[in-house]
Amino acid sequence: MSALHTLRLKYQPVLPKHIVDIDNVIVEDGPKTQSKVDQKELSELFKHTYGLPAAKLAAGRSEEIHRKMRCGFILSGGPAAGGHNVVAGLYDGLMKGNKENKLFGFKCGAGGILKNEYIEITSELIDKYRNMGGFDIVGSGRTKIETDEQFATAFKNISALELDALIVVGGDDSNTNCALLAEYFAAKNSKCVFVGVPKTIDGDLKNEYIEVSFGFDTACKTYSESIGNIERDAISSRKYWHFIKLMGRSASHIALEASLQAQPTYAIVSEEVEAKKMTVNQIANKLTDLVVKRSQDGLNFGVVLIPEGLLEFIPEVKVLIEQLNDLLAHKKEEYAKLTEFAQQKAFVIEHIPKEMGEVFSGLPDNIAKQLLLDRDPHGNVNVSAIETETFVSGIIKNELKRRGSKVPFTPVHHFFGYEGRCAFPTNFDATYCYALGYTSFILAAYKKTGQICCISGLKGPSTEWICGGVPLTVMMNMEQRNGSLKPVIQKALVELNGKPFKYYESKREAWALAEDYAFPGAVQYYGPAEVSDQPPKTLLLEQN
Amino acid sequence: MSALHTLRLKYQPVLPKHIVDIDNVIVEDGPKTQSKVDQKELSELFKHTYGLPAAKLAAGRSEEIHRKMRCGFILSGGPAAGGHNVVAGLYDGLMKGNKENKLFGFKCGAGGILKNEYIEITSELIDKYRNMGGFDIVGSGRTKIETDEQFATAFKNISALELDALIVVGGDDSNTNCALLAEYFAAKNSKCVFVGVPKTIDGDLKNEYIEVSFGFDTACKTYSESIGNIERDAISSRKYWHFIKLMGRSASHIALEASLQAQPTYAIVSEEVEAKKMTVNQIANKLTDLVVKRSQDGLNFGVVLIPEGLLEFIPEVKVLIEQLNDLLAHKKEEYAKLTEFAQQKAFVIEHIPKEMGEVFSGLPDNIAKQLLLDRDPHGNVNVSAIETETFVSGIIKNELKRRGSKVPFTPVHHFFGYEGRCAFPTNFDATYCYALGYTSFILAAYKKTGQICCISGLKGPSTEWICGGVPLTVMMNMEQRNGSLKPVIQKALVELNGKPFKYYESKREAWALAEDYAFPGAVQYYGPAEVSDQPPKTLLLEQN
Repeated sequence: MSALHTLRLKYQPVLPKHIVDIDNVIVEDGPKTQSKVDQKELSELFKHTYGLPAAKLAAGRSEEIHRKMRCGFILSGGPAAGGHNVVAGLYDGLMKGNKENKLFGFKCGAGGILKNEYIEITSELIDKYRNMGGFDIVGSGRTKIETDEQFATAFKNISALELDALIVVGGDDSNTNCALLAEYFAAKNSKCVFVGVPKTIDGDLKNEYIEVSFGFDTACKTYSESIGNIERDAISSRKYWHFIKLMGRSASHIALEASLQAQPTYAIVSEEVEAKKMTVNQIANKLTDLVVKRSQDGLNFGVVLIPEGLLEFIPEVKVLIEQLNDLLAHKKEEYAKLTEFAQQKAFVIEHIPKEMGEVFSGLPDNIAKQLLLDRDPHGNVNVSAIETETFVSGIIKNELKRRGSKVPFTPVHHFFGYEGRCAFPTNFDATYCYALGYTSFILAAYKKTGQICCISGLKGPSTEWICGGVPLTVMMNMEQRNGSLKPVIQKALVELNGKPFKYYESKREAWALAEDYAFPGAVQYYGPAEVSDQPPKTLLLEQN
Repeated sequence: MSALHTLRLKYQPVLPKHIVDIDNVIVEDGPKTQSKVDQKELSELFKHTYGLPAAKLAAGRSEEIHRKMRCGFILSGGPAAGGHNVVAGLYDGLMKGNKENKLFGFKCGAGGILKNEYIEITSELIDKYRNMGGFDIVGSGRTKIETDEQFATAFKNISALELDALIVVGGDDSNTNCALLAEYFAAKNSKCVFVGVPKTIDGDLKNEYIEVSFGFDTACKTYSESIGNIERDAISSRKYWHFIKLMGRSASHIALEASLQAQPTYAIVSEEVEAKKMTVNQIANKLTDLVVKRSQDGLNFGVVLIPEGLLEFIPEVKVLIEQLNDLLAHKKEEYAKLTEFAQQKAFVIEHIPKEMGEVFSGLPDNIAKQLLLDRDPHGNVNVSAIETETFVSGIIKNELKRRGSKVPFTPVHHFFGYEGRCAFPTNFDATYCYALGYTSFILAAYKKTGQICCISGLKGPSTEWICGGVPLTVMMNMEQRNGSLKPVIQKALVELNGKPFKYYESKREAWALAEDYAFPGAVQYYGPAEVSDQPPKTLLLEQN
């Protein structure tokens, strides 16, 4: 066990003062809630759980909090730092409520419910996981409960375990699943309630109720450390252009937060590319101009941040990908006979509209090859496997060549992903998660089913945070998924009119031409508050 | 400027107590020195600087330390954390010696000497770089002073600047260059002395005088943080095998230190592969056995560390690479006509000895392709561009296929390099470097030319460290370089009989089958000494 491991086990998160005394917390009904859109469809799908009041945690005494409970939980989807503290907060809340309470963790996400695989969380066990990164106390998984059979199995297993509550720790999909389970169990008059906890390092589970999802802070600070180190390498070596792909396929929150932390030469924000309908050529031109301009200033180096989902946000590439999926599905046999890339490329250009053929020819070869490979069972290309970082450096290289430019350009590529999901949670995430877990216990004790824990005031000290719950249906709309309309929680994209992006926009021209960078350094767990106890910069800008 | 940046500027390294009072330090001659081998050749090449006594720093008073000096320095080669503190220690020493002393930094390594590009280091300037990572105060470079013309230019520029000393901060090659400059200038009766400082994150500049090179600690701790995070991801997600390539082409010190820190599933140590004359098949078998065994235990995941130089340490691959270099040089035109990989492969197999053809066919396709690409101007393949991490996962995949095994095996690849070279130096590196810089001033004041700063006792508190100097020629031998015998400082390889490797060897079987890992976490600059003030684990084992 590392020295930091031993020490972090002893860290004690400070709870918001309005919930710390369990004998002075009651849950009151806030105003009734409504989804912003699709009210009719949602109220029909969630007959028993739609439109319920939000949960307000007020001062007061009630025996409800001391009722005897058997509680379960799952950790769902990609791990995020702080998950173990959600469990710790939940466990400690349960123990404060009633010493006879029980907590069970299903193994490896919702799959554990279906397989009826779980463990009991004891005091000895949870003490080994306090303030630890990862989801390994029970493991995580991506299974969703979707079919009638799966719902029936979940009902059977959860009922057999006599659970009074199940806490779902997950992102937008898992919390949608949480809402569906809440409705299903409510319709069957089960005593089991379902409470969600907002997790995702991507930061796209965010709205007027949720200031930030947990894990985002730790992930961004961990990536920003590496980005800052690479920036310092760039100004020391003075000869490399670093292209850094960051996790976040559906939104660019991580790239934006990391930019605010590390002030790179440039950060691509996918949402802006989409909104401005930028073409590959426009992106190539913009970045090539930058490479040339910096070279004129003697700066033959730079650091560019790239959200991994970029390609699907470039309108013409999105169309191209769809057309390639179609083409390769319909001309499968003909295409399969072509073994050389040159033949494949010619075949593609011949069979898609001319303007798309031009887009395709303009792509760097390695990216064009990747777009032709590996269809998934639905006939779609695996976009997440495409090396977006080499795409960006490749279009610059091509453009420099087209211009006949002799500017030195040596790209180096990086992908930061897995190393940010399971770090020891920052003090912010450790404290936030502990409060989320503790709140989930209170909501569960008060039978607030189909709600997600929401904590506001995160820019201030944790003692002043305000905890509560909001029905998940509030955040939903209806979307096409695999050919049918489904209720889903809307993903938050980077708002181009929001304060964080506006701030970046106001700075980026200066940063793009600057020689120097900002160096966030490694996450600090000790030392003065300004280095060890700060929320994400996007949150500070948004809440200011 | 980040909060940590602001705070680190104020960190004050504590000097060894025997050198802190400049008016109570004198340099005495230790015993005369000898190189271990090639004494005759070296003493002829270094007529004026071979066999000099080592420098011992003793208590005493002398005016020598207060003589007025003009000092220069270069930062050479890949950056390493702590370089700025070498400059700070040197600057502070110079100022303690004589307020009128001057310090000049040549830009971008030895190239700055040749181009006569330098800046003066002022108090305001150095205060911006205290405890900062990187080499950006003047930039780094890889130019070596080799030709007669270059030596003459260096002599002209350094003499024109009236330097009394030049401090060379670099690895083995740069320090060899330092020794050659010392000899050249001594032969010409120049007043300028040359003092080296041992830098390299790779850790291979190490011997009985140098306990560790600076930057190694910060780099290894930075990599170990990420490795630990990925390990935690592995046990949370339970479905990925992570293959992590680490910097260190000539030796495996980084992989070994990171293993001691993070206790991965397996770490390949190149020196062991070479010593045991392991074949590709043997490595594949060993690791595939491990994948299968872990799968039987329900552990379809793992974390494998790979030194980037591995391929050249596998004897049969080394021979293969030489033969490919030869073949492609001699049959260049014939080969150039082949456009498809299948043809190229067949051609190669036809033209190299049968057993080498088997080695070649056994390689994963992407590696075989990389071995056929991109000859450098000398006709050699660019080994450092080969993706050693996909080589290792590829031979496992091939072996699983050969065995007909259905074991789940999903590899994920990483390369940790640049992000470890320029982090804020750990307290250990910050303090070590400050003491090195300060020592370099003392040696220079006493005209100890051709020496390298050596500090011993690094496992203890910095107040007790013992500083001194040793003639660089002591560490040299004669080696073939580009077709002629050259004096070079011997690189330290991982000693298979040394305590660090023996310790790893005693643990690795248990670690290989374990479910759990060690999680070092981010570098801490504050908090209790056990998390913020530790030297590398290999050093502790070696010095114990």
